[in-house]
Amino acid sequence: MNTLRTVGIVGLGLIGGSMAKTVKKHTIARVYACDLDPNAMALAREAGAIDGELTNETIRECDVLLIAIAPQDLVRWVRDNAALIPKSTILVDLCGVKRYIYDNVSPIAREHGFLYVGGHPMAGKEVSGFANADMDLYRDASMILCPDETATEEAIDDLKAFFLALGFGEIVFSTPEEHDRIIAYTSQLAHATSSAYIKSPTSRQRMGFTAGSYKDMTRVARLDPEMWTQLFMANRDHMIEELQELVDNLAGYLDALKADDSALLKKLLEEGRDLKITEPIENC
Amino acid sequence: MNTLRTVGIVGLGLIGGSMAKTVKKHTIARVYACDLDPNAMALAREAGAIDGELTNETIRECDVLLIAIAPQDLVRWVRDNAALIPKSTILVDLCGVKRYIYDNVSPIAREHGFLYVGGHPMAGKEVSGFANADMDLYRDASMILCPDETATEEAIDDLKAFFLALGFGEIVFSTPEEHDRIIAYTSQLAHATSSAYIKSPTSRQRMGFTAGSYKDMTRVARLDPEMWTQLFMANRDHMIEELQELVDNLAGYLDALKADDSALLKKLLEEGRDLKITEPIENC
Repeated sequence: MNTLRTVGIVGLGLIGGSMAKTVKKHTIARVYACDLDPNAMALAREAGAIDGELTNETIRECDVLLIAIAPQDLVRWVRDNAALIPKSTILVDLCGVKRYIYDNVSPIAREHGFLYVGGHPMAGKEVSGFANADMDLYRDASMILCPDETATEEAIDDLKAFFLALGFGEIVFSTPEEHDRIIAYTSQLAHATSSAYIKSPTSRQRMGFTAGSYKDMTRVARLDPEMWTQLFMANRDHMIEELQELVDNLAGYLDALKADDSALLKKLLEEGRDLKITEPIENC
Repeated sequence: MNTLRTVGIVGLGLIGGSMAKTVKKHTIARVYACDLDPNAMALAREAGAIDGELTNETIRECDVLLIAIAPQDLVRWVRDNAALIPKSTILVDLCGVKRYIYDNVSPIAREHGFLYVGGHPMAGKEVSGFANADMDLYRDASMILCPDETATEEAIDDLKAFFLALGFGEIVFSTPEEHDRIIAYTSQLAHATSSAYIKSPTSRQRMGFTAGSYKDMTRVARLDPEMWTQLFMANRDHMIEELQELVDNLAGYLDALKADDSALLKKLLEEGRDLKITEPIENC
């Protein structure tokens, strides 16, 4: 049974807005939310995604607080509002990096006595804002949780039940370090690659010459530059490592072509094919 | 009105097999086909995608011949079968490169008197073979045609009507040179990038840490190594240029991260975002 009856959401962009819609769809919880953009608030009210505003008063009712804003803003928000957060409340950030948030938020949680669990819903879109929020965005997706020492076993169980009730396909537990190392590859590198890919001058001459592979490759180039800069910078070490790895691997194909070595090129393509076809199948 | 009443198809893989199914769905044409794999032939017969085998006899009835095999095999097939192709027949290759085919097939067409038009349907899948052939693969896709001097205006009109009747969204005319230059970027580079992307050791630890961007980025790593080696090698100059461009662009992001320069990183991401959001919308 879901014991988290009142949910506070900070930030009604794509991630927070989709959370609000999903909570209203799958649970009987009350949802209080805030966003700096009055338009997002109005849209969320209209869509029935929120029951009211998250204020200095309503925050006291919240069993769980989901924070879905950019990393630096998030740390600032927690610092500014820490004194208002009840000691029984579980604060879950929904950021794409975990070490930076953990390092900054965990001490505040310990100082003020509320519970903190890092979170990262593995779902997204190349568009942002509440207008693109989707009550099915998280369906069958993986929800990553990185609990710190403040999180009790009971709080973690409550969160597991809560996110599974929202339609997530599985709950994956990780550490901030492991999360950031893997996410640098699975998500951040994909965004950097897409952004770099579209910079060839040939991209302006592509009309009528594209199929699925181009669309897939450039889809997420349409990212939010400010947010992704913060995410990349907060995961700089792992991003440098993965970008270097990709550049080195691409250079292998380039060298094979320059050397006119079709046997080597074929070997490189076979290695990639074999890695793809032997991938474990996602449960969700 | 479609005047191409008998269609020959060489190669019943994903591309040729989907053509066979599409022709039977949208036209009353007879389809004769051949494939080295008896299983593909059996599957095609069973699916009602072909009316019979393309033989030394049935080839004489064909108004159009669609050749959907790998570049080197294709040139060999045309050379071996040129004497059997009627002078009124339009031969359309469906290869992903056009200069190599044009340079090798156009002289044979001129010598033997049949008509030759290079073709490239802008649709595909990461899986191959007749088992994955799909009667809707080409729906709303772009069909690129590169006619040579042997192609009469009437033949080109017939082909246009034929491919539009099959459900293609538009017919795009190009030269072999322009085609190969642009396709190196829109299709071949995407396949090389996807293949290189999956080679990070982190790819083996990604379970539960992926969303759409990883799936999109690595989808076409599952390519046919022999065919793509031939395509890359037949378009070596343009592939070297585009791979170098991508490596250079990625190095820009890497340098910004190494220099801890978030302003530069944001500028690079903004440039990519702007290129994506100002892209012309595809008609099809």
